[in-house]
Amino acid sequence: MTVSSAPGKVYLFGEHAVVYGEPAVPCAIERRATVTAKARDDDRLRVQTQDLTLDGFSVEYGDGVLNADVDVPRPLVEAAVGYVDGAIDQVRDVADENVGFTITIESDIPLGAGLGSSAAVVVAAIDAATREIGIELSPTEIADRAYRVEYDVQDGQASRADTFCSAMGGAVRVEGDDCRPIENASRLPFVIGYDGGTGDTGALVSGVRSLREEYDFAADTVRTVGDIVRVGERALAEGDIHKIGQLMDFNHGLLSALGVSSRSLDAMVWAARDADALGAKLTGAGGGGCIVALDESPSTATALSYTPGCEEAFRAELDRDGVRVEAE
Amino acid sequence: MTVSSAPGKVYLFGEHAVVYGEPAVPCAIERRATVTAKARDDDRLRVQTQDLTLDGFSVEYGDGVLNADVDVPRPLVEAAVGYVDGAIDQVRDVADENVGFTITIESDIPLGAGLGSSAAVVVAAIDAATREIGIELSPTEIADRAYRVEYDVQDGQASRADTFCSAMGGAVRVEGDDCRPIENASRLPFVIGYDGGTGDTGALVSGVRSLREEYDFAADTVRTVGDIVRVGERALAEGDIHKIGQLMDFNHGLLSALGVSSRSLDAMVWAARDADALGAKLTGAGGGGCIVALDESPSTATALSYTPGCEEAFRAELDRDGVRVEAE
Repeated sequence: MTVSSAPGKVYLFGEHAVVYGEPAVPCAIERRATVTAKARDDDRLRVQTQDLTLDGFSVEYGDGVLNADVDVPRPLVEAAVGYVDGAIDQVRDVADENVGFTITIESDIPLGAGLGSSAAVVVAAIDAATREIGIELSPTEIADRAYRVEYDVQDGQASRADTFCSAMGGAVRVEGDDCRPIENASRLPFVIGYDGGTGDTGALVSGVRSLREEYDFAADTVRTVGDIVRVGERALAEGDIHKIGQLMDFNHGLLSALGVSSRSLDAMVWAARDADALGAKLTGAGGGGCIVALDESPSTATALSYTPGCEEAFRAELDRDGVRVEAE
Repeated sequence: MTVSSAPGKVYLFGEHAVVYGEPAVPCAIERRATVTAKARDDDRLRVQTQDLTLDGFSVEYGDGVLNADVDVPRPLVEAAVGYVDGAIDQVRDVADENVGFTITIESDIPLGAGLGSSAAVVVAAIDAATREIGIELSPTEIADRAYRVEYDVQDGQASRADTFCSAMGGAVRVEGDDCRPIENASRLPFVIGYDGGTGDTGALVSGVRSLREEYDFAADTVRTVGDIVRVGERALAEGDIHKIGQLMDFNHGLLSALGVSSRSLDAMVWAARDADALGAKLTGAGGGGCIVALDESPSTATALSYTPGCEEAFRAELDRDGVRVEAE
């Protein structure tokens, strides 16, 4: 039996603009998916999942049968199982044989909330299952294989950002297919607010594309997001956390202009700012889901927990560890 | 006795960026300040003011004595009286003699809310008092003299936009000192939401200046606002009200990025959008005050009236009339 874990992520800067070749800075957070892999005597795959959201749900999967709690949207459950299926396909490709596994997943990363929960599950699953059969892959190879899984499950819409960030940990820089860790990134006291919802990523990405095609000023706004990222990278290396907060606020405004914020996201962003967070922005595709704020003190998490529309608020520091083995 | 009225205004596009030479489009709204001027036998000035806010207050002013209801911030009252003083100075300059007047002011434009209440009072006062002594000034001359009053009272921080828009009515285009009416502007079914507050215009303008000086991307964002205005002018001439709404939404996001929105302004903007307004944005300096939305139906006004933080919501169509005499 082998247990591996991998972190979720937030976008410090640059979501959406990254689709058009601008750089982005995702950061791993101290919220993890933990996957246990146990080799089987047969070549079958059994997946047991629980606590895949903050509220928790369970799925039994095997022999084509899928049972889940009724509370969880079925497409989310099917997607989650699809990710594990894909991860094990990658492991079998590495092993070059049809190994069987019993896989158990636990995760404290809200599902479908833009925090990279699926990437974390795939990364941890590949690591646990390969180790279970005596193979040790490098984090970059895990990232690459996990990307292929996301690419397949998401019909070619995946970004390398989530899987690379989850495998490597820390702050990373993504620009097209070029992904690299940002060395010496400063400490980042993230606070996350979650509205319990999930945006329609496809529709949000299409909305930005339409604006950008129709209006030159929208294309300029996308480029301006890239400029924020370039300034933000330097601030991150210099440890200028006040400037990072200011840039997060500005980035959020540009995302709002591009039409990807929402009423609850803006309400959470203002709750954080009124609580003297250094900065706050939506993270991910938007339209609902999560905001990320910077605050060393407990004020922002407290303010968020009293904000109508915020379902969960929690602290999660920048996590310097990427994928790691927890037990073998 | 002569009675003149002049409209308040909203910014359809371009506030803040106009400070840096970009164009802006203020629009007169069907909310007016009404000023009654009565020539006196002596050379003294007496000012009576009531209903200068939606809640109403009264001021008696003359011989250096100023009495006002305690509910109203004294600086606002003193400023209001300062504007009338300045307007009468302009009238005396035109008349080339020290004429005395009793001036009565009524206004249904919220005071200090970014709706150009002071400009409307000054424009209407100059018109009423000059007519009262048999002089008829053109709207452009009234606009010019009213601007000088605002310039003095506001310590050189005034824009020509408010006074020109109030004197001329309709939609106008302002770029630096170049002000001109926009002919054939389409109907604009404005809905206004007012949070009961007022932003610190000086601090907000300084905040944008600091961002612009520190970051190239902030200067680019200011230019992008100008680009929206240039696209918006064409949409206004073409009567493409859906595009106007879309541009208002985008303009609001850029203003948010520049740090001049607020929690209550964003809450009102989202209430309007959720009520299917065609678009919504803050109007004026921001930080508090008013939003303007476009909605033909009663939905937005109703939604705003139930929005926490919105103190007043009202419809106010684009007003094609500028300053006009009501009775003489």
